[in-house]
Amino acid sequence: MKLAVFGPGLLGSSIALAARRRGDFRVAIWGRREEAVAELRAREIGDLASTDLAAVARDADLAVLCVPIGAMPALARQLAQMLPRTALVTDVGSVKAPVVHDLGAIFRGNARFVGSHPMAGSEQQGLHAARADLFEQHVCIVTPDAQSEPEAVAEISSFWERLGCLVRRLPPEEHDEIAAAISHVPHLLAAALVNAVAGANPDAFAFAGPGFRDTTRVASGPPEMWTEILGVNRRAVKKSAEAMIEKLREFLTLLDSPAAGGDATMNQFLTSAKAQRDRLRVRA
Amino acid sequence: MKLAVFGPGLLGSSIALAARRRGDFRVAIWGRREEAVAELRAREIGDLASTDLAAVARDADLAVLCVPIGAMPALARQLAQMLPRTALVTDVGSVKAPVVHDLGAIFRGNARFVGSHPMAGSEQQGLHAARADLFEQHVCIVTPDAQSEPEAVAEISSFWERLGCLVRRLPPEEHDEIAAAISHVPHLLAAALVNAVAGANPDAFAFAGPGFRDTTRVASGPPEMWTEILGVNRRAVKKSAEAMIEKLREFLTLLDSPAAGGDATMNQFLTSAKAQRDRLRVRA
Repeated sequence: MKLAVFGPGLLGSSIALAARRRGDFRVAIWGRREEAVAELRAREIGDLASTDLAAVARDADLAVLCVPIGAMPALARQLAQMLPRTALVTDVGSVKAPVVHDLGAIFRGNARFVGSHPMAGSEQQGLHAARADLFEQHVCIVTPDAQSEPEAVAEISSFWERLGCLVRRLPPEEHDEIAAAISHVPHLLAAALVNAVAGANPDAFAFAGPGFRDTTRVASGPPEMWTEILGVNRRAVKKSAEAMIEKLREFLTLLDSPAAGGDATMNQFLTSAKAQRDRLRVRA
Repeated sequence: MKLAVFGPGLLGSSIALAARRRGDFRVAIWGRREEAVAELRAREIGDLASTDLAAVARDADLAVLCVPIGAMPALARQLAQMLPRTALVTDVGSVKAPVVHDLGAIFRGNARFVGSHPMAGSEQQGLHAARADLFEQHVCIVTPDAQSEPEAVAEISSFWERLGCLVRRLPPEEHDEIAAAISHVPHLLAAALVNAVAGANPDAFAFAGPGFRDTTRVASGPPEMWTEILGVNRRAVKKSAEAMIEKLREFLTLLDSPAAGGDATMNQFLTSAKAQRDRLRVRA
């Protein structure tokens, strides 16, 4: 099996490392810049690392697109002419409806495309942060649509499972609503919290403890990537952020009426949050 | 030196463990309930563990109150009659202005009181989570007021430094503003985020990755304690939460006007947050 990975960032490099460790893949990885490819070679991230798109795509059984969402369609149009018709293609974009729509159309008749979103990023960027175990025990959401071949969906799911993922399936639109709630809005909250503290009193950072550290960790993620994600998933992000503001306002109203049972209701609010959070199972 | 710790929770037990490990303290620890004291003894958290307040307080050089904020004044009134006049007293309450006001008045003429707030909690509760290294490399805020003796402030600071803390000083009111921004509101955000997701689509939790896990970790903290903290620090929490909502609204407005430079300004918003967050230094 030849695996072709396009994009030398954290996800692309970690996929290449994880697949090589499995041993049943020949891994080729493409980077646009010579410097990135030199680093891929130095770290032996793939059996082949190259800036030559055709060389990486040639005879691939499986192709994974790991470039920013905005760069996907142009890359896909080139690959549609280079990949075998039998190749299975997926991507790792954090927003799925527009990507699945565009890439599905581009690959139709050229290769078999199914979208994916491994929930295993990090605030760290680039191949220096790559890890063969990045995906282990983390969820990967596979997002078939009406055009997807069931066999292709099963094969992509099995690929992610071989990298260690817990595979779940969602239609692309439903994925985008859920990703807004559990990933995109949490990122926005972390960034807004840091900016709110900086605006009120930048000296406050010097007093922070582990709670603030963890609550804001994702705010260290790449700004360009997140600007794109939040912008492309605009509608779902707004809906989810408004629900969040409403919950905050609900609590602030309780704070104003401690005597009228506000304290008991605040306790219920926090108890309910604790109960849900205690049930969360995400690998450390 | 005899150290008397009042309260067998995470902080009290960890203080006792850390001080015993130092070796230059005899440590007595008080718990209200027999069950808790039995556990303290089983884990050898102190040289003496007892429900007898007077026995724990007797001849103490240093006393640390580690009970919920609301229980502090009643405990302090009893201790004021039991501790030596030369004893140095502090507490670990997360809100300082009201605690320092009340305990300062209660101990005046009986013992020397200075407030403290070690920024080293955890979402875990109770003595089973206690660790001798809980405080190492974490900030402890010592909060002298106009009545504090400089020598007592220096001695309390030195105590926390011996447990491994990075000691900083703030007036109690300033502490409460800063704690609202970097601890109390982040807790509220985590709880509100969990409740917002649960309200919109409880199935979404099954898709969460490490970002959601870390952003919401503190929501697993004890609801009673946090209801009390948020209620007692009501004014500063509201101010800080409103600043947070304003930042969120600022971003949502940008989301609506991508063509009018919104995307560039979103990028600036996230870049600024990343720059501040990258500078944060909190021990892992």
